[in-house]
Amino acid sequence: MSAPVSPPSPAVRAEATARLAALATPPGALGRLGELAVWVATVQGQVPPVPVDRVRTVIFAGDHGVADHGVSAFPKAITPAMVRTFLLGKAAVSVLAAQHGVSVRVLDIGVEDDLAGVPAEVTAFKIRRGSGAIHLEDALTADETRRSIAVGETVAAEEIAAGAQLLIGGDMGIGNTTPAAALIAASLGLPASEVTGRGTGVDEAGLARKTEIVQQALDRAGSRVTDPVDTLTALGSADLAAAAGFLAAAARAGVPVLLDGVISVAAAVMADRLAPGAAEWFAAGHRSTEPAQALALDKLGLSPILDLGMRLGEGSGAVAAVPVVRSAALLLSDVALLSDLG
Amino acid sequence: MSAPVSPPSPAVRAEATARLAALATPPGALGRLGELAVWVATVQGQVPPVPVDRVRTVIFAGDHGVADHGVSAFPKAITPAMVRTFLLGKAAVSVLAAQHGVSVRVLDIGVEDDLAGVPAEVTAFKIRRGSGAIHLEDALTADETRRSIAVGETVAAEEIAAGAQLLIGGDMGIGNTTPAAALIAASLGLPASEVTGRGTGVDEAGLARKTEIVQQALDRAGSRVTDPVDTLTALGSADLAAAAGFLAAAARAGVPVLLDGVISVAAAVMADRLAPGAAEWFAAGHRSTEPAQALALDKLGLSPILDLGMRLGEGSGAVAAVPVVRSAALLLSDVALLSDLG
Repeated sequence: MSAPVSPPSPAVRAEATARLAALATPPGALGRLGELAVWVATVQGQVPPVPVDRVRTVIFAGDHGVADHGVSAFPKAITPAMVRTFLLGKAAVSVLAAQHGVSVRVLDIGVEDDLAGVPAEVTAFKIRRGSGAIHLEDALTADETRRSIAVGETVAAEEIAAGAQLLIGGDMGIGNTTPAAALIAASLGLPASEVTGRGTGVDEAGLARKTEIVQQALDRAGSRVTDPVDTLTALGSADLAAAAGFLAAAARAGVPVLLDGVISVAAAVMADRLAPGAAEWFAAGHRSTEPAQALALDKLGLSPILDLGMRLGEGSGAVAAVPVVRSAALLLSDVALLSDLG
Repeated sequence: MSAPVSPPSPAVRAEATARLAALATPPGALGRLGELAVWVATVQGQVPPVPVDRVRTVIFAGDHGVADHGVSAFPKAITPAMVRTFLLGKAAVSVLAAQHGVSVRVLDIGVEDDLAGVPAEVTAFKIRRGSGAIHLEDALTADETRRSIAVGETVAAEEIAAGAQLLIGGDMGIGNTTPAAALIAASLGLPASEVTGRGTGVDEAGLARKTEIVQQALDRAGSRVTDPVDTLTALGSADLAAAAGFLAAAARAGVPVLLDGVISVAAAVMADRLAPGAAEWFAAGHRSTEPAQALALDKLGLSPILDLGMRLGEGSGAVAAVPVVRSAALLLSDVALLSDLG
């Protein structure tokens, strides 16, 4: 499961860099758009890159035992309500995805609700009703972790078979910034105080409680955090393990991924541990306000495209960045070369 | 000419802010997208805002006498070559505009070339062949300045009549970051050393020469910089004066503007002096690498949407930000309200 991922071709990267330098623009004048253009061409394996038309988002939904312990400003009932809102196309990520022609698929991986009446395909991959409260118990059994990762791999394969040129992993789950912070802290060797943020907006007392819970979870997990699967079992959740499997499988298949906020980036850190080198296939859609997200992006060597102070999750920040990724690819393919100028 | 501009409606702003707070997202979770959504609704005068479909860019092209004095890494011949590249749809801004369905109109306001063979409408508003070297002489005569501003006003009226919901002023002109820096320094009361940047990429010696030229121009203009028209006459150029007239006319007509880099923002500073309060109708598309741009945006109370290290001009940074402005409007109109959630 931890076989390294084949890196994108250095030869293609060199060719893309050369084409960027040959465009009829001053050297470096495209800034990050130029770097992103080189990344797109490299992960596509072709120069110039083709348009990034088919972008597919999968939202991994699940609940978290810690939500019963005062870590979130919202009640668990929001999770199934939002799953229904995605299905109605009325969530923020739905609106952004419709704008950009991005598909959105929502999957109940671990929601603490039966979601009665939703289409069967939404719950087809459900692992359990809610994951464990990580400061008190493991999030999952070892078997559930393996099955969650496998679900993510299956879903990635399905999305790739459907033609995805770029994948996005979104999230929905009240309390999910707590396990995400714990996974990042465990993987980067940081204390809870450095990674814990306000999530959807807890107050000072809530932040203190949340930090304590993350630290308690890290202490409880102890040395098990040296293994990525054990880390997900102890500190993750079914939805986070599925998202990690999804991202790792995308990288193994050589399909690029645009990361979202702290949940997505926590899954990316775990994917890069499950499949070392996976992060070379990832780009960071946006910078969220969660401290763990910035720390994890640094660790993965990624720099976010957008910095709009968003902290919504759902995949919304990544979907908002899709037109910029598309711009980068189009600039490298369609702008005149200096040699074409009169 | 300096009559104040009517501000956007505070009542509409309050209504938009209330709708933002009622969306089915945690308070503040949309970050800058939420603020931008309120701005779009406010300048449109309606809540929810309608989609920002019709975005129109006008590129004001012109040459600058300072380009003969070592302030640019590129020769003047690039200016007409790039005008032709815009007409072929092969410049960076053309590619981005095609991606986003934004119209691009290029106008030769002061190019030092006859542009033989280009369509007549491109040169119909030409004021002169190149503007004066501002460290040695006035950029324009007082009459040329007035005519340039009037050209910008006429063009804005034409674009608004064509249905523009959002306007972008782009630029093309080798050496144009020098008069732009001078206009910003003069308007903000800053020395050349604080505003002068590398433009398309001059070396250390070029930067020193450019700074000296900007300071020499400021010293030469002296107290004339207290009047905005005199400032444009002494330190501007035909294309910059036209761009300022364009932006001022947009604000007077209550049509919002998305600003680009240092040239566009210098024109915006002048527009806000010609038409006090105009900046309330402006949003900043991106942060360029030019120091004068950041200083001028602060002065105008604007914070850029994108921060991608771009320094290309043409309107490219603003056009790259168009999908984000559109996202903001769509989110405020299409996301479910909290009260709709089950």
